[in-house]
Parts: sequence; structure tokens; C-alpha cells
Amino acid sequence: MVIVGGGFGGLWAARALAGAEVDVTLLDRRNHHVFQPLLYQVATAGLSPGEIASPIRWILRRQANVTVLLGDVLAINCDAKRLRLSEGAEPGYDYLIVAAGARHAYFGHDDWRAHAPGLKTMEDALHIRRRVLLAFEQAERLAGAPDGGDPEGLLTFVIVGGGPTGVELAGALAEIARHTMRHDFRRIDPSKAAIILVEGGPRVLPAFSEPHSAFARGALERLGVSVRTSTMVTAVDGAGVTVRAADGSESRIASRTALWAAGVAASPLGAGLSAHTDRAGRVRVRPELTISERDDVFVVGDLATLAGPDGQPYPGVAQVAMQQGAQAARNVLRRLAGQPMRPFRYRDYGNMATIGRAKAVADLGWLQLRGYVAWLAWLFIHVLKLIGFRNRASVMLQWAWAYFSYQRSARLITDDEESR
Amino acid sequence: MVIVGGGFGGLWAARALAGAEVDVTLLDRRNHHVFQPLLYQVATAGLSPGEIASPIRWILRRQANVTVLLGDVLAINCDAKRLRLSEGAEPGYDYLIVAAGARHAYFGHDDWRAHAPGLKTMEDALHIRRRVLLAFEQAERLAGAPDGGDPEGLLTFVIVGGGPTGVELAGALAEIARHTMRHDFRRIDPSKAAIILVEGGPRVLPAFSEPHSAFARGALERLGVSVRTSTMVTAVDGAGVTVRAADGSESRIASRTALWAAGVAASPLGAGLSAHTDRAGRVRVRPELTISERDDVFVVGDLATLAGPDGQPYPGVAQVAMQQGAQAARNVLRRLAGQPMRPFRYRDYGNMATIGRAKAVADLGWLQLRGYVAWLAWLFIHVLKLIGFRNRASVMLQWAWAYFSYQRSARLITDDEESR
Repeated sequence: MVIVGGGFGGLWAARALAGAEVDVTLLDRRNHHVFQPLLYQVATAGLSPGEIASPIRWILRRQANVTVLLGDVLAINCDAKRLRLSEGAEPGYDYLIVAAGARHAYFGHDDWRAHAPGLKTMEDALHIRRRVLLAFEQAERLAGAPDGGDPEGLLTFVIVGGGPTGVELAGALAEIARHTMRHDFRRIDPSKAAIILVEGGPRVLPAFSEPHSAFARGALERLGVSVRTSTMVTAVDGAGVTVRAADGSESRIASRTALWAAGVAASPLGAGLSAHTDRAGRVRVRPELTISERDDVFVVGDLATLAGPDGQPYPGVAQVAMQQGAQAARNVLRRLAGQPMRPFRYRDYGNMATIGRAKAVADLGWLQLRGYVAWLAWLFIHVLKLIGFRNRASVMLQWAWAYFSYQRSARLITDDEESR
Repeated sequence: MVIVGGGFGGLWAARALAGAEVDVTLLDRRNHHVFQPLLYQVATAGLSPGEIASPIRWILRRQANVTVLLGDVLAINCDAKRLRLSEGAEPGYDYLIVAAGARHAYFGHDDWRAHAPGLKTMEDALHIRRRVLLAFEQAERLAGAPDGGDPEGLLTFVIVGGGPTGVELAGALAEIARHTMRHDFRRIDPSKAAIILVEGGPRVLPAFSEPHSAFARGALERLGVSVRTSTMVTAVDGAGVTVRAADGSESRIASRTALWAAGVAASPLGAGLSAHTDRAGRVRVRPELTISERDDVFVVGDLATLAGPDGQPYPGVAQVAMQQGAQAARNVLRRLAGQPMRPFRYRDYGNMATIGRAKAVADLGWLQLRGYVAWLAWLFIHVLKLIGFRNRASVMLQWAWAYFSYQRSARLITDDEESR
């Protein structure tokens, strides 16, 4: 059988097949699995790529029934039961688990992508890191007009989207500007940087309770982030962002660095796989996680959409992807054993988001935490979930160092194309 | 005054000016200083970029008289005492220290560069890492013919140049293939990879004593590296390397991955600065490190050449660059104080090279070490010299982990252009 994707869904599917009498081929475009909840730390120079990513084949090295191949799946032919890869090969499958994930959606404005990069892959994170660091470098180089404000928006950062990623990016950027870089510049004052978080809905962190949202907003504002809720983005270009407030008035924010943390579009593989997709391109799956056209094809994670017992679709988070991947794998094994498949049931372990240094909100269902205790819980859980001992130890060390020194370890601009 | 370059020469010049009554501008194309002696560890996935590099402005943050700017110097006009930067600015100087370093030389065959990348910058190291990891991925993907050898050279790595960098790369590659990746592939056996070190002279590590060279060769061969001395490279292309042995016979090595660790060419800034350059483009400087045309322009490090008391030019190593940078800075201060400049005198602290896991050679003048003890000395000295506590602690942790697990932490292929 074949698994497409080495993210949380695909990897947990492969793990659930450990020891089973099946030959598994796992295909991914990249050689590494990324611990996505910490990607924003790479984007803001707090962690190095190697600390939150590991080679997929290394993670699965002890699982002799899994072959990991680097490959980009262009299309799936369900009739012929074959995949088509970019380099021309056409491997077949008997069972297929598709966990190809999602990218960012720009509400139909794909031209915004170049000006407001999203944060889904390691390349995205390194690109954002470069953009942010270069903005400060350029501001220092061009500084001269004494206290001329920031007319060109070099030190104005706009983050679009007030979900966990947007909140985490905004908090980390504020910390960099106010603390990390405090002594590093001679002509500019990095603490004067403007960090603006734009959210279309009435509050940040809409998936959390209202008190959590209010707490997060207050914490961000104390860090110096300007939070604009009920505000829609109507244009993005290289010089800035245009927004429309709730009262319908439009205004322009001069900014050279906009970051996109809103909107999700499923992998285009979904559309080729099934006619039943939702607006974001997610494939509507049956409770057993198969598609309605084929019961040998499973779709899991961000590429799938399935309503829970409350009628609401499951959220696009790592926990859902992991549990769906494992369930799809178990359903394959049940079919091979002649048993009926079982429907997916989600165990919700809760929801967390961190805000800058040493603050977080956590909604664990039975327990609501805010502030320092929530941050400790966040720290503990994320370090626990990182794959491999080395990564854990290294991340702990970085964080201890960052906490006591306010420094960030990975402030490197590395890219021939853009580094000058 | 202006310093061009944030490598060892430029950084030590800036440090020697701490507290002095001079305004210093340090220009570099990159935002980070790289600890070059450990670059081969990044190229072979043992360390992450952030662990051997730090932002130049962070290193100099406490030195209020230094302004660090990201900028690419295109030309130096000594008559007008002005620099020309790529983005158009033309800053002036009263004193100038040029520490622009060197690139690789391909003996007039610049077309080899694309097929055999060198290792001077962080981008070089990441490029080599990608090439090496992708070779194994491609071999796994294309494997099929049972025991068909390696006709396409996918698992054949040729390293050109038997100096410290070549020896270190060869040893680290052998370790990756034999140990690190042992359990990670299903179709290929990475320990069958061929690693071939080609050196034009009669022995590897020619700057060391003959017993050291013999020891290094033996250690490499026990790691499975094939060492070919007195062998010249006559052609390099995407499919392999052609070599000529001492007896004049030519042979072809099929290899998709060749690495270049031979030959040095000084920065082109040298040629624009002075008519007195050697064959490699290095500027011949006076004992005070000024150029003969101008006594307000100093050239230090790999861009300079100066004969020592024994008539031999000082080697292109970090120690020379650091000491020359500091001496040039002190000579500027002496001139400003109306005192005569002093000639450069080199304090040689010795020479070390490591060979794979837990072996090294060290020539400290009064002490010759080989094997495990030399490796411990190498480890100690390199960790000691890394800039900043965090880097030191993190590198120690990586190395301890690598030593006990045979694993490497940074096996990531990250580059949109090539990652598929």
C-alpha cells in the first residue's frame, strides 16, 4: 500500500502499520517531517530548522515494512490504481492513504502570495525569517532622516489572521523588536517597529473561549502589538496593505513585510481524487475516512473534511491528522483481515496558543489556563511531542537560553538570491 | 574608518578598535559571521547553520563605535577614498581595512564550479548538504537492478583536494554512509557508497609532517575512503570526474557528486585595489599590512599575501587573518596617535585536522598528537573558539549526541528549487 505525505497524518498512518504484514511505500516531496506547531519559531529565528524537523526515513528507520521515497505526486488514477510522479514513475497501489495537507488560501487573490508569504513548510519559515531580518537590515542601511517616522514601512509588520499562528508570529516579532535586537543597531531603534495584527472576525483566537481571546489580546497589546479585529484585508502589494474596518472605512498601512496566517486551501490532489470537495478544496470523507467513490482510498488530515458528532467539521489541527492517519491505517488492516471498518472518533486533548515570552492560553476542556502556567504547560507538551531525543534536548536548551538572555539563536540570512 | 568583511580578519580588526575614539563602519554581504573551521560539519549535516554562525551586529552589539551594515562592495576608489556598493551608495573612508577573503579557484576551469561546489560560505555548505542527501534519495528511488553496482555514480562521491577541508569532508561522508544512514534505506546499502579523495601532491595534509599525513591516510582508508595521491583532475562534469595518475594514465570516475576542496582565488576586490597581486589574486602587502600604493589602505587575511621570516608566505588560515586584522587596527590607531606603524608578527598556535569520528592530527609545534587525544584537543579548542555561550553549549550537545548515537542532527533538504 501507499501513503502520500509525511506530515502528521501520513506519519501516524505509517506508525500504526508497524509490525503488520503489509508493504508500505511512503511518498513525500520533502525528505523531512516538520513539527508544524513550532514552525513560527523558525520563522522568527528562535529555533533552527534541524531542531523541529527530522528526516522521515530516519523516523521510520526501525519499521522494516516501510520504504520512504522522495517524490512529488502529480495525479492519482483511482481506476488504474496508480499514482503519477513528477519524475515519470507510475507506482501502483492496492490501498492508498492520502495525507497531502493544505497550503494557504488568499481568498482568490493569488497575487498577494508574493507580498504576504504564508507559513506551512520549512521553506516558508526560512523565507519569512529572511524577510523579517532583511527589513531591519535595510532600515538600518537607509536610515538617515532624523526621526522621520517609517514612511516606507520598512519597520512595519502586518500579520493577517488572528488564529494561533498569527498570534504566535505577532508575539514573537514583538519580542524580537523590543528585546532581542535592542543593542544591535546604531541608526534605528528596533523597538519602534510597528507590529499590526489584522483579524476579520470580532476577536483573536476564535477557536478559544471569549475570556481566552480577551486575555490574548491584552497580552499582545502589552507587548506593543496593535490588534485590529473586525478588519478585512482588501489589497496587498509590495508597499503595503489596505484594510477595511467594520464601519466600511478603508485605510492604507505602509508595510514592506506582510505575513499571511489566514485561510487554508487543500492540496490540489483532492480535486483530482473526488467530486465531493468543500469550498476550500477539502475532500468530504465517509466516517471510515474513505472517499465515497472508492473504498480503497482514504483521505486524512487537512485534506479531508468530516463532521463530528456536533455537526461541526473537525478542525485542521495536528491532533486530528494524527488520529485520522492512525484510524485509516487500522481500517486497512481490518479490511485485510476481513473485518468491517470502524468510523473515526476524535479524542480532543485541547487547544493551546502562546503569546510572546512566557504567556499562553490553554483550553484542555476540563481545565482552562492562562498566563505563565499555561505557557509552562505549552512548553512541556510541545517538547514532549517533538520527535527524537536530540531535538527535545536541543529545543530545551534553546528555550532556556532564550528565556534568560532574550536572545534568539538562528538570526541568519541565508539565501544567495536575496541575501544582498 | 571602514572595514570590508565580517570574517575572521574584519571581525578581529573591529574588536581591536573597542573603546577607541574612531567611528567604524563594518560592511559585509552577509549578516552573519561564520566559524569556517566547522563549515564541513554543516555540509555533512552534523551541525545546523545557527550553531556555527552568529549575526555580525550581535557579536559587536556592545561596541558602540561600530556600525554594521549589510552591503556588497563592488569597487574601491583609493583616489577619492570612496567605496561603491551594489545598491548605489558611495560611502567615504579615511582609513580602510579590506578583509574580503577568498573563493575557490578551479585552475581556469570555471565550468567545473557547477558540478563540484566548494565550501567557503554557509550557502556553499547548505548546497553541499542538499547535493549529498539528494544523491542517496535518488539512489533509493532509482534502485532496482539487483546488485548492479553503481554505474551512474549516484553513490560515488569524489572530493578534490587533500588539505584539511578535503580530509574532513571525506571522513565525515564515510561516517554518514557507514553509520548514520545504516538503517534508513530499504533498496540501497548506503555503506556501499564509494568515497574517493583525490590529491595532486604526493600526500594528504601537505602542511603537516609526513607521519601525520601517513596517519591521516591510514585512518581515512580504515573508514573506507579511497585515497588517490599524485593524481590530477583533468575534467569535471555532471556525470563524473576524469583524473590523471602520476604515470600519465587517465581514468574516469562515474560520480554525480563531486566536491571541491582545492585551490583558492582571492576576492576580485584585490585586483581593483593594487597592481601587486600574486597568481591567486592576493594583494602583496607591506609588513605593516598596507598596500604599497596607499598607506591608508590595509589588506588582511586570505586576500593578502606576505612573506614570514622564513621567506614563505603566511598560510591562508583563520589564525593569520585574526592576527592580521587586529594588527591592522592597531596600526590605524598608532597612525592616529602620531606613532610609527609596527610590522605584522605571526604567533603560530599550530595546526589541526580531524578525520571522521574521534580521530585527528595536531601539530602544535612543541607537541605532536595523533588519534583520539588529538581529537579531544581539536574538540576542546574548537568549542572554546566558537563565539557566544549558546553556540558552545549547543555544539557540545550535538557532538555528545552524535558521538554516542552515530546520528546527525541536520539532515534536511531545504530548497524549493532543488528539493523535489
